Amino acid sequence: MKNFHFLILGLTISLGSVAHAKSPADIVAAAPASDWVEVPAEDLLVMTLPNTAQDGARRVVIQLAPAPFAQGWVDNIRKLAQARWWDGLAITRVQDNYVAQWGDPDGETPAKARALPPGLRQMPEADYVVPGQLPQSKGLEEVFLPRNAASNWSNFYKGWPVAGTHGQGGPSNWLVHCYGMVGVGRNLSPDTGTGAELYAVIGHAPRHLDRNIAVVGRVVQGIEHLSSLPRGTAALGFYAHPKERTRIDTLRLVSDLPVKERPRFAVLASDSASFQAYAHARANRRDAFFNIPAGGADLCNIPVPIRQIAPQQ
Amino acid sequence: MKNFHFLILGLTISLGSVAHAKSPADIVAAAPASDWVEVPAEDLLVMTLPNTAQDGARRVVIQLAPAPFAQGWVDNIRKLAQARWWDGLAITRVQDNYVAQWGDPDGETPAKARALPPGLRQMPEADYVVPGQLPQSKGLEEVFLPRNAASNWSNFYKGWPVAGTHGQGGPSNWLVHCYGMVGVGRNLSPDTGTGAELYAVIGHAPRHLDRNIAVVGRVVQGIEHLSSLPRGTAALGFYAHPKERTRIDTLRLVSDLPVKERPRFAVLASDSASFQAYAHARANRRDAFFNIPAGGADLCNIPVPIRQIAPQQ
Repeated sequence: MKNFHFLILGLTISLGSVAHAKSPADIVAAAPASDWVEVPAEDLLVMTLPNTAQDGARRVVIQLAPAPFAQGWVDNIRKLAQARWWDGLAITRVQDNYVAQWGDPDGETPAKARALPPGLRQMPEADYVVPGQLPQSKGLEEVFLPRNAASNWSNFYKGWPVAGTHGQGGPSNWLVHCYGMVGVGRNLSPDTGTGAELYAVIGHAPRHLDRNIAVVGRVVQGIEHLSSLPRGTAALGFYAHPKERTRIDTLRLVSDLPVKERPRFAVLASDSASFQAYAHARANRRDAFFNIPAGGADLCNIPVPIRQIAPQQ
Repeated sequence: MKNFHFLILGLTISLGSVAHAKSPADIVAAAPASDWVEVPAEDLLVMTLPNTAQDGARRVVIQLAPAPFAQGWVDNIRKLAQARWWDGLAITRVQDNYVAQWGDPDGETPAKARALPPGLRQMPEADYVVPGQLPQSKGLEEVFLPRNAASNWSNFYKGWPVAGTHGQGGPSNWLVHCYGMVGVGRNLSPDTGTGAELYAVIGHAPRHLDRNIAVVGRVVQGIEHLSSLPRGTAALGFYAHPKERTRIDTLRLVSDLPVKERPRFAVLASDSASFQAYAHARANRRDAFFNIPAGGADLCNIPVPIRQIAPQQ
């Protein structure tokens, strides 16, 4: 954890003489192009926040959840972005080790709330989970803590962290509240939220929210622009004063941007050999810094590798 | 996750008509004074950072680990604080979803490094764990995910999150890298660090560091002054330019402060009935917002309740 160590670490492979296994980062860097899957432009959102002297331009890129997860909310979110509904609204809440949340600061005051665009759907709570047994990435059975069991499991599906259980009504699956995941704010049940009020996880995985809220995406770039915001001092991390909020300049669907301006990202396919090697290396670190491999990893301590790729010309 | 919900939530108990269980926060608020244990002043450190317009005075309070954990490093840290060794040094690294680290920015340059005070000890790697079977808080067996097994377990000991395993050499135990825990930076093995270079966890629990680094304490107040710092843009979150670092004004052992200036804290005893009820409520949320209790919680998703108490007059 000192400068010296980290300089050494980056050289481990090229030196060759050090008898340590590859690090997770080395494995990802060596993954062939065929193991990376580009994210469709219609599954990406770009949120821009005002520039600051310290950080310059602040851009947060969010990937929307794939089918079969949460597609009702995802459709609503696309409609909201296309209506430019979030432009000029704000990040209203930053609670340490929990969430950063954005939406309409006046959303609970009907006379002042911004009108929602037409065509949004209301989803039932049943849509928090996906029924049936989804295919699971093979070769990862021994990676996860807790160990997978017949009744409960952790795995990755299409590059997303997923948990599942055999309930009384048969198996079901859901996207997991890991760091950086994006969910839908809601009022008390049976309300499930429209998707207009969103939050990103900025702390230890709040797994108690799983199956209680719709997870609709994840931050793939710029989470630090949310996680490093000042914490709100009112209850639950809401900002006590409106001037403390961070304004949202724009929030756009990337497929609505000119082709040359579209940021592009690729995800390491979770059923690829590279991902398997990466996950095993995360679960049992044997690179130079480590003496004792952990013997397994929490699902949320195996962040899915995502990288930016060059824009189309 | 909207304002409305949170306003309702605070009223759940007093309304009485809502058929929901107490929230974890309600249970902690109702804990009798006898379930709280004051932290000795010699186990507390106060780090002060320069005031900012946004945050005002920035104070970070750290509790040092209790015996039998990491006492060699803890003794070193007391000596360093008493020598005022950190005063004027800096937070040098903030890596998103990982750690904020502080110490001597010139520590790796012998000609410029600040001399360490006399009497520091070098500890062996064996001291990363504590041998033998420590007593465990009863009644928590069903709380933790992964489920406790004969070969591996999670629990709390004296109010700290602890994991253990039956290895070939018998059982051993260690403090866990949860959010807010403080550890000792080091170079490559066999170096174990002195305690002069410290970090606090500001993201999802990096459990792969367990048993590979000495955990020596935890932040009990002001973690937000570390977790909301700008992220460093050089490799591994080190600041690229010295001016980006945050200066440490002072770092003091609380027992060295005048009695009236000593901040005081109490920890909810992990073997108390209140803590048991709290942990079970964290593992199975049944308060108003929740529909589906999780059935268990990660050790690091049961943060130990710690509260400030009035200073002595």
